Amino acid sequence: MANFGLRRLSIVSPFAVNWSEAKSAVGAPELLHEARVFDSLGEAIEACALVIGTGSLDRRRPEQRVLTMSQAGTALRSALNTTAHGGQENARVALVFGSEKHGLTASDLAWCHAIAVIETTSQQPSMNLGQAVAVALYELTRVEDGSSPVILFPQTVADSEHLERLAALVEETMEEANYLTRGLRSSNGEALRILLRRLMPNDADLRRMMGLFRRILWRLRHTD
Amino acid sequence: MANFGLRRLSIVSPFAVNWSEAKSAVGAPELLHEARVFDSLGEAIEACALVIGTGSLDRRRPEQRVLTMSQAGTALRSALNTTAHGGQENARVALVFGSEKHGLTASDLAWCHAIAVIETTSQQPSMNLGQAVAVALYELTRVEDGSSPVILFPQTVADSEHLERLAALVEETMEEANYLTRGLRSSNGEALRILLRRLMPNDADLRRMMGLFRRILWRLRHTD
Repeated sequence: MANFGLRRLSIVSPFAVNWSEAKSAVGAPELLHEARVFDSLGEAIEACALVIGTGSLDRRRPEQRVLTMSQAGTALRSALNTTAHGGQENARVALVFGSEKHGLTASDLAWCHAIAVIETTSQQPSMNLGQAVAVALYELTRVEDGSSPVILFPQTVADSEHLERLAALVEETMEEANYLTRGLRSSNGEALRILLRRLMPNDADLRRMMGLFRRILWRLRHTD
Repeated sequence: MANFGLRRLSIVSPFAVNWSEAKSAVGAPELLHEARVFDSLGEAIEACALVIGTGSLDRRRPEQRVLTMSQAGTALRSALNTTAHGGQENARVALVFGSEKHGLTASDLAWCHAIAVIETTSQQPSMNLGQAVAVALYELTRVEDGSSPVILFPQTVADSEHLERLAALVEETMEEANYLTRGLRSSNGEALRILLRRLMPNDADLRRMMGLFRRILWRLRHTD
């Protein structure tokens, strides 16, 4: 929760010893200290306009609507943008997790508008609680990135002019080394030009390569 | 891993006691028994065409490209659909996680083409290892929903073993040319390793560069 910036934690009838140990642990995040403890799930989610339970579908066929975690995220976010309490404040929502051992009971699920499921393999559908929470909160807080392209592009790519200088230097080196191969040579240096652009060196890479090839060229010309 | 249907686990120099305990635990999934143990990361990812490290950006500013986990997923999936080893088999990819305490070291990251980061709050950027793995695998195995991924990944990227051969050849050349610069040299060849991975040459590029540097090396040694 702290990783993903969520703060409002409510605990329903925790095992007292574990709970006080967790709260007093060194480095326990603020949200643990501020967590509220309730006797029942009904009380814990009383102020919530949308309540989504979590679980795997291995054992039961729930009556509620089953959502992917991504769909649950959309539903929770849109609910958060509505108002509640006579337009006084934003609506509250809850995402409910069951115990590590048994998950949410049928009685817990009765408080939920829908059930969100993390898609897992049928061989191993049941997730560790902490991992399920992490996956769910990652999904709920992810920034919707429209159709953002994959950026596999360096941050400070060398410009064309500098790439051409490197290309010229490499060609000079090839000539000096008497290295004539179809793979890199062409009448107009195109093969090399394409190669350098595909590699997308950044400015620092370029300086390094220029330095190396200058040195090689110098050595090729001055070896005794 | 079992939840999301992944099977190929490689462990690098595990703490022996913990590792054998984990393997022999009741209910340990098949993939733990089948896990392979390596002495070094370099050996573990030798056959991989794309290696993506993981981490948070709180401490360092890495040289590699930084991707969101969603972008890493797209890159890994598209790499998996390319072929390697002369078109004989599908390319292998690796997603690398560091230890719970320290994450990946700078030396580990030198083997990686890019770093994938789970977007967390700046107040609490560092995630629990198991939770980070769960989030990453959830993201990597999620079903693409319509928006066509942009593939900026070369079609036949050279694998790690071949990149190391090129790195060794370039180092030899630098030595022969008496080219000692902080930019490319480091006691263990890390700077060069990072550079080659960032450039992601494909098999043909690699052959060309090997050819050129072999020729240069020969000339440096045989000039009269």
